[in-house]
Amino acid sequence: MEKKRTVFFVSDRTGITAEALGRSLMSQFNGDGFRQITLPFIANLDKANQAVERINSAGKDQGLRPIVFSTIVDDEVRTVIERSDALYLDFFKTFIGPLESELGMRSSHTVGRAHASADNAAYIQRIEAVNFALANDDGISTKRYPEADVILVGVSRSGKTPTCLYLALQFGIYAGNYPLIEDDLKRGKLPDVLVPFLPKLYGLTIEPTRLQQIRYHRRPDSRYASADQVHYEVEKAEDIFKAVGVPYMNTTHPSIEEIATTVLHQTGIQRRF
Amino acid sequence: MEKKRTVFFVSDRTGITAEALGRSLMSQFNGDGFRQITLPFIANLDKANQAVERINSAGKDQGLRPIVFSTIVDDEVRTVIERSDALYLDFFKTFIGPLESELGMRSSHTVGRAHASADNAAYIQRIEAVNFALANDDGISTKRYPEADVILVGVSRSGKTPTCLYLALQFGIYAGNYPLIEDDLKRGKLPDVLVPFLPKLYGLTIEPTRLQQIRYHRRPDSRYASADQVHYEVEKAEDIFKAVGVPYMNTTHPSIEEIATTVLHQTGIQRRF
Repeated sequence: MEKKRTVFFVSDRTGITAEALGRSLMSQFNGDGFRQITLPFIANLDKANQAVERINSAGKDQGLRPIVFSTIVDDEVRTVIERSDALYLDFFKTFIGPLESELGMRSSHTVGRAHASADNAAYIQRIEAVNFALANDDGISTKRYPEADVILVGVSRSGKTPTCLYLALQFGIYAGNYPLIEDDLKRGKLPDVLVPFLPKLYGLTIEPTRLQQIRYHRRPDSRYASADQVHYEVEKAEDIFKAVGVPYMNTTHPSIEEIATTVLHQTGIQRRF
Repeated sequence: MEKKRTVFFVSDRTGITAEALGRSLMSQFNGDGFRQITLPFIANLDKANQAVERINSAGKDQGLRPIVFSTIVDDEVRTVIERSDALYLDFFKTFIGPLESELGMRSSHTVGRAHASADNAAYIQRIEAVNFALANDDGISTKRYPEADVILVGVSRSGKTPTCLYLALQFGIYAGNYPLIEDDLKRGKLPDVLVPFLPKLYGLTIEPTRLQQIRYHRRPDSRYASADQVHYEVEKAEDIFKAVGVPYMNTTHPSIEEIATTVLHQTGIQRRF
């Protein structure tokens, strides 16, 4: 078996931030050629010593020195990990020094929270936004549209639901979504129920061939997934967006994070935390 | 008005990683004392120059030098931002050098992707996991439990739904959830429908006073939100977990990210990307 270098993401909390930045960095170096292991909740010396053992033994097994990305606040814990036989890059230690100088104060050295915790108001905001997304998914109900920050509109499988959920979880945004179904597309105009909310609408469109793939995965050999049908739907949906001036974006290539961030950026909606 | 220092998160993509790490770092310095502005999609020289203007004018307005956290891959774009009158900390540039030396290769300098994009298999995995979470939310249906990676169990408002959605979006995990309702708690045993799936169950519990707050926010002055009721439900739910050996955690203080990561960590479920 081919030997692969191991990349570790080590954190005293979830490791999610260390993973995101570490993966982004490794993607600059043909990122698929590495094994990835996340070690979360390394928050005391015992766990730090166990982590070092895992790191060192991965290095021996593969015959290649591991790379360790970490976000460790506690100096003692970090000092232990630092002694592992690896290229050690800590996202905290590197930047705390310059920040202390600039701000003229010492850092608190408490284990930090990158995410809205249950102890603060942002948490309830987040949960309410998730509930809003669920209650207003797929046009189930339009009653609460007056409360919505944004209403995503598009054909079935254009990415509306995951984008709404991500907007809720990441930014606390109240996002509903409304599917354009065949009747709407045939009429060639915005559904009446959406008209009062025109300023809140944002359209998602997608390349027909990609849409076909996604639908095929769900219902193979259906009219729903046929080339004619997806071309028709996408064209008609875009016609409606243009006719009434609904801004829209193409979701064929971007990730859910990128779609959500683009919606925020282009609509100017304020995130709620 | 009190002058506040402005913290900018600048990225050639979403800025989500720059925000997460930057906020984590700032939380070491009494993080509430700063204004935060994210500038995503700064991917060409024009946008870079506009970003510099915003950064410099925030510095003048507030009379305090801004702090800029960035993840910029393109050297030219970064060089422009770097010239702003700010403490400039780039998460990319700092680590690319040591990685190039260690790996003995040059980085590709292509704008990196931290998140699963629509162009790869992980995207469909992610969407399918989100659909699974929606179809198996709140005990709606138990038909697809055989496919589940994990089934979260707990009383109403213990954090099951957002955790399932996060597990799906972030890790591609198939997570269902089942609410323990009063009838289940009275019987004092695991609902029959869950018995075959015992090895997949993971319990969420919560401090009664916190649960009361959350429920009160939803239905004030209801029996559902009364002190007696929440105490009763939490105690009975924990009794069931203990009796049948379902592992469980307390969701009172951790963030959704922390709950999701803990579930992964303690169950040993493999993430799907």
